[in-house]
Amino acid sequence: MSRFRSEKFDGLEPYTPGEQPQDMVYTKLNTNENPFPPCPAAVTAASQAAKSLMLYPDPDSTALVKKLSEVYGVRPSQVIVNNGSDETLYFAFLAFCDEAHPAVFADLTYGFYPVFASITGAPYTEIPLEEDFTLDVSKYCGVNKTVFLANPNAPTGIPVPLGGIEEILKTNPNNVVVVDEAYVDFGAESAVKLVDRYENLLVVQTFSKSRSFAGGRLGFGIGSEALIADLNAIQYSTNPYNINRMTAAAGVAILENEEYTRHNCRAIMENRAYTVEALQELGFTCTPSKANFIFVKSDAIGGKELYLELKKRGVLIRHFEKPRIKDYNRITIGSREQMHTLLTAVKEILEEIG
Amino acid sequence: MSRFRSEKFDGLEPYTPGEQPQDMVYTKLNTNENPFPPCPAAVTAASQAAKSLMLYPDPDSTALVKKLSEVYGVRPSQVIVNNGSDETLYFAFLAFCDEAHPAVFADLTYGFYPVFASITGAPYTEIPLEEDFTLDVSKYCGVNKTVFLANPNAPTGIPVPLGGIEEILKTNPNNVVVVDEAYVDFGAESAVKLVDRYENLLVVQTFSKSRSFAGGRLGFGIGSEALIADLNAIQYSTNPYNINRMTAAAGVAILENEEYTRHNCRAIMENRAYTVEALQELGFTCTPSKANFIFVKSDAIGGKELYLELKKRGVLIRHFEKPRIKDYNRITIGSREQMHTLLTAVKEILEEIG
Repeated sequence: MSRFRSEKFDGLEPYTPGEQPQDMVYTKLNTNENPFPPCPAAVTAASQAAKSLMLYPDPDSTALVKKLSEVYGVRPSQVIVNNGSDETLYFAFLAFCDEAHPAVFADLTYGFYPVFASITGAPYTEIPLEEDFTLDVSKYCGVNKTVFLANPNAPTGIPVPLGGIEEILKTNPNNVVVVDEAYVDFGAESAVKLVDRYENLLVVQTFSKSRSFAGGRLGFGIGSEALIADLNAIQYSTNPYNINRMTAAAGVAILENEEYTRHNCRAIMENRAYTVEALQELGFTCTPSKANFIFVKSDAIGGKELYLELKKRGVLIRHFEKPRIKDYNRITIGSREQMHTLLTAVKEILEEIG
Repeated sequence: MSRFRSEKFDGLEPYTPGEQPQDMVYTKLNTNENPFPPCPAAVTAASQAAKSLMLYPDPDSTALVKKLSEVYGVRPSQVIVNNGSDETLYFAFLAFCDEAHPAVFADLTYGFYPVFASITGAPYTEIPLEEDFTLDVSKYCGVNKTVFLANPNAPTGIPVPLGGIEEILKTNPNNVVVVDEAYVDFGAESAVKLVDRYENLLVVQTFSKSRSFAGGRLGFGIGSEALIADLNAIQYSTNPYNINRMTAAAGVAILENEEYTRHNCRAIMENRAYTVEALQELGFTCTPSKANFIFVKSDAIGGKELYLELKKRGVLIRHFEKPRIKDYNRITIGSREQMHTLLTAVKEILEEIG
């Protein structure tokens, strides 16, 4: 930190992303990436767009926004696209949180929420999840704060049913409720169908997980026109040209091939069921995940130890130091082959210590 | 604006980018794009990277930062890369401006500075340029504010000599001086060579203009390690994965082909001299621009009228409504062919009104 930095950031603790080793020697199950490549049409569209990179992109990303609006059954004015959904979430903290509108979220959820609150100067409260990591909707009803709710939640994968989301929306009519659906395409129910009924609902999604596009950086928000206008005002006051031409073109192509996405999601859901069953047979406890990751613990080995032993064997998973979840690990669901590699390594480790 | 938006943004006036018509029927001389395509190696690198978009990018953009550090003769820890230099500038306003460190910039300069100040809540002062649009360095000496200085300046193209920059750095030792060198590669002198001598210097550059990469979104900052660490803390608190894989790969390829960039810059400088001479023969006044645009006025036709007449004829240039410069227009220097199209249209207009 330099002596020039504004004091308002004293105490700021930036987010720590999962390890991203660039040498590719690992079976990478630590950042919830999709094991399948982007659809061929997306690669072609990006390559084509690369030829005209001397021109600025369309700052409104008109074609991409239109295509998203068609896929999700809303109007284009109800959609904003961002440089990853982290940008959408940052804009939401900036636009909808302040002293009069503090943020509220679970104690165990996406670890970036407290960082967003910190950098935007938003006061925030954390509501502890229940003992079994489920979220008690009643604790958010009438809370009169800007709610951030990852659904399904991370790192547990547990979803809140849509009825619960609706309760929260109804009982907080003067606050925005942000439903962060990064993992919704793997078996949970989206709140997008509620946006026309609740003007305080902002749904945030990403192309990173279900659409095999983490490296392209593309997230989006869907909500009422007024909320989207607020977020656009932030975009046009920070970084109007936030989506590059290649990502915009590839995004359209991806949306024109939704069956490819759905097919891959089904494969990942099958691999999830397969992996959970295999780990349970090995004595693991698994939360009921509807995401492309599972959250597991073993009575035979500590969370950190399992993480380190797997890393030695070339398998990267994610371990969090937070006291409440230190016995657990989050494991991305990849291809069947990757899951075999994981399970073989886990068995080997358990045999060694057993 | 929704009723949910934080009151702190009441009065926010987002930036208005130049027109970006997507139908491509115009000779586009309004947003200072480069007329030449990105180098072939960049297109190949981006296309190759598109195949592995299911994986997150390296949040540190290690390879790109290393290559930039080599090209500019600094250490990697002195470089940050951003999603366009607007992001670098936004981060700088956020990190280095507050009540105790108000911002200061010229009254005529990049129109985004007041917007950045507004969204980050930074108080700011504008110092009027001289009558001839030059910047009087003495007015910035000992100003004790965070200085933002576009060099060469926009929309005039007039540079401040390096000695002047050094005066400002020396006399404001407790404030950051941000030198925004978006257009420096077209004949002005960069302050990068001063970064090891002045810990308060942050140089901001972009791939958008000289490197034909406006559509790829890539900007960067070079400064002391401590300043770069401050900006990285902001990045990791807002959007760690800010550079997508295709842009990062193309960026490295562009830097491996610096001769391609230099060759194009020379061509644009030649076209600038040619266009200025031709316009002066037609009675235009032109500021002494060292950028890839010129700033011109005619006694025969008003700025807005010329803009509209050219648009009718398929040539887009940029007109600003600000009272002090409403008689002027900013015209991007493109290929020789584009300059012929411009000059033919201008002659036609002058003949019609004459």
